[in-house]
Amino acid sequence: MKTPPTDASTPLFPFDLIRADLVDVEQAIRDQARAFDPAVEGYVSYVCQAAGKRIRPALALMAGGATGGKTAHHTRLSVILEMVHIASLVHDDIMDGAETRRGLPTAVAKWGSSLSVLLGDAIFAYALELATDFDDAQVCRSIAKASRDVCSGEIFQTQRRFDLNLSVADYLRMIEMKTAALFAAAAGLGARLNGVSEQVEQAMHSYGMKLGTVYQIYDDCLDLVGDEKKVGKTLRTDLARGKLTLPILYLLMDATDAQKQKLNKMLLKGEPMDTSILAGIADYEGAIERAVNFAQNMLKEARDELICLDETPYKKAFEDIASYLHALLDNCRAV
Amino acid sequence: MKTPPTDASTPLFPFDLIRADLVDVEQAIRDQARAFDPAVEGYVSYVCQAAGKRIRPALALMAGGATGGKTAHHTRLSVILEMVHIASLVHDDIMDGAETRRGLPTAVAKWGSSLSVLLGDAIFAYALELATDFDDAQVCRSIAKASRDVCSGEIFQTQRRFDLNLSVADYLRMIEMKTAALFAAAAGLGARLNGVSEQVEQAMHSYGMKLGTVYQIYDDCLDLVGDEKKVGKTLRTDLARGKLTLPILYLLMDATDAQKQKLNKMLLKGEPMDTSILAGIADYEGAIERAVNFAQNMLKEARDELICLDETPYKKAFEDIASYLHALLDNCRAV
Repeated sequence: MKTPPTDASTPLFPFDLIRADLVDVEQAIRDQARAFDPAVEGYVSYVCQAAGKRIRPALALMAGGATGGKTAHHTRLSVILEMVHIASLVHDDIMDGAETRRGLPTAVAKWGSSLSVLLGDAIFAYALELATDFDDAQVCRSIAKASRDVCSGEIFQTQRRFDLNLSVADYLRMIEMKTAALFAAAAGLGARLNGVSEQVEQAMHSYGMKLGTVYQIYDDCLDLVGDEKKVGKTLRTDLARGKLTLPILYLLMDATDAQKQKLNKMLLKGEPMDTSILAGIADYEGAIERAVNFAQNMLKEARDELICLDETPYKKAFEDIASYLHALLDNCRAV
Repeated sequence: MKTPPTDASTPLFPFDLIRADLVDVEQAIRDQARAFDPAVEGYVSYVCQAAGKRIRPALALMAGGATGGKTAHHTRLSVILEMVHIASLVHDDIMDGAETRRGLPTAVAKWGSSLSVLLGDAIFAYALELATDFDDAQVCRSIAKASRDVCSGEIFQTQRRFDLNLSVADYLRMIEMKTAALFAAAAGLGARLNGVSEQVEQAMHSYGMKLGTVYQIYDDCLDLVGDEKKVGKTLRTDLARGKLTLPILYLLMDATDAQKQKLNKMLLKGEPMDTSILAGIADYEGAIERAVNFAQNMLKEARDELICLDETPYKKAFEDIASYLHALLDNCRAV
């Protein structure tokens, strides 16, 4: 297992085992862009290259490898899930007014919000069109359901911004929908495509759901405690946008009434200085520690789901991803 | 056949034959809103009630009636197509900054653009999820394809705003994608659900495509020549937004170089007074007449497609819709 880089904004998961397959997925995504109307193709190509870390494809491919072998179906599933993810990123960037993503200008920065709304729509529609090509209708249905969850989760988040009554349960439901649903679809459907038992499919789905949840908690912690220079992107944006994340929710839970009033003030103000102070307080009070512990416990649960898999390098790789994310979380603790 | 109302912004098609079925569709749409996460349900309910004229459901139901009978599958198809349409309207209203739709505040006016982007996404995803329930995978595939066409057509339109080199062929391809594709899916799939021959399905699909194209041309003409007081909504918005429609394209085609320069000036300025003058010139030069003639010819072609249908009240109703739209187009001519 690789040692996680402490200065990376994006966890570079140990995907060596499927490096070659990911190249195929990359090519397949490029090919799909050409299926669009010529008037649209250029835009689609751009965002498909610029956005998305290919984590969902990696999980789908690994699930295939772990349950009998990767096939062309796994490549297609990978492409579809990544395109759904890319469509959601295009729309997210509109909402966040994001200028760049992974060093490249976002669609909204390049072409404005109108075109970006439509571009996300078109990619999304195409991904679901591709999904109808699976013989097993349940695969398409699950992809559509996960896609809807992503949207519903985002609405949920938008709607509960600056809502200091957000519970931890609400937060978890939100990130399950907006992030973990596609991870779960990747791992679960990747196994399903190989005709595994319902129990194995469910276990892989559950692994994906837990991994996705932890991944989002990690991302949320990083936004709070990361060092902008090391991470290489603007941080403390969640708080400025009123997104209450797990450490902040823990902080609110443990606060006295007087402290709560102070937190409210800082959260509702959302200026750069205040959010840094807030991060400092969250660290000092152990709220970040608590979030990290919660996430690391969930990673243990995720690993337990793998018990149903045969001993293969892919099973090992799934374990490695969990260990890797565990180490990344430790970095948050050490800040 | 009813006489078309000269003062209506929305053609009230003669849908009497399926009035009761449309009530069922309305109820089914309301029921679907309840399938969303409680955090999202209220928004979905609102836009599903506020947007959409139910033309696509009507075509799907009528196609069922004309080819062996309406079933629960036709109701489901209707709900799905209308939800895709509603999702596209929610996103359109963001782009156009529309304040009201059919007298009610739009989603973007009520809740802002961020939530509206996500809301459209969630409705769209759900519609495609519902589509996966058809046993015939081709139905789902066609719905997804038509949905993608809607998005691609909108991108095309956004991209070619103020482009004076837009050809009539480009314009027709654009409106086929953005409007007619869902009409075609409604009529074609409505027939397919009854297991008709490929020829009949294709003829109904083609009827829908032509009807949808004419419907959009009518809408475009109305925007140019309609009387705001009679129509009851803001007009001349297409020109102000740089949308070049069929009459304007004909006007540009027939203009001398000197006239073209004058048109360019007016089109690129897009102020209220100029667009009224432009409409006057288009009328005077016969460009509106020409667009109306084109559309009415296409309506004849649409009616010809119906030849494959048995003589039923539904076939008659399809003919009536064409006649009705023909009469509405005559109103544009008479302005």
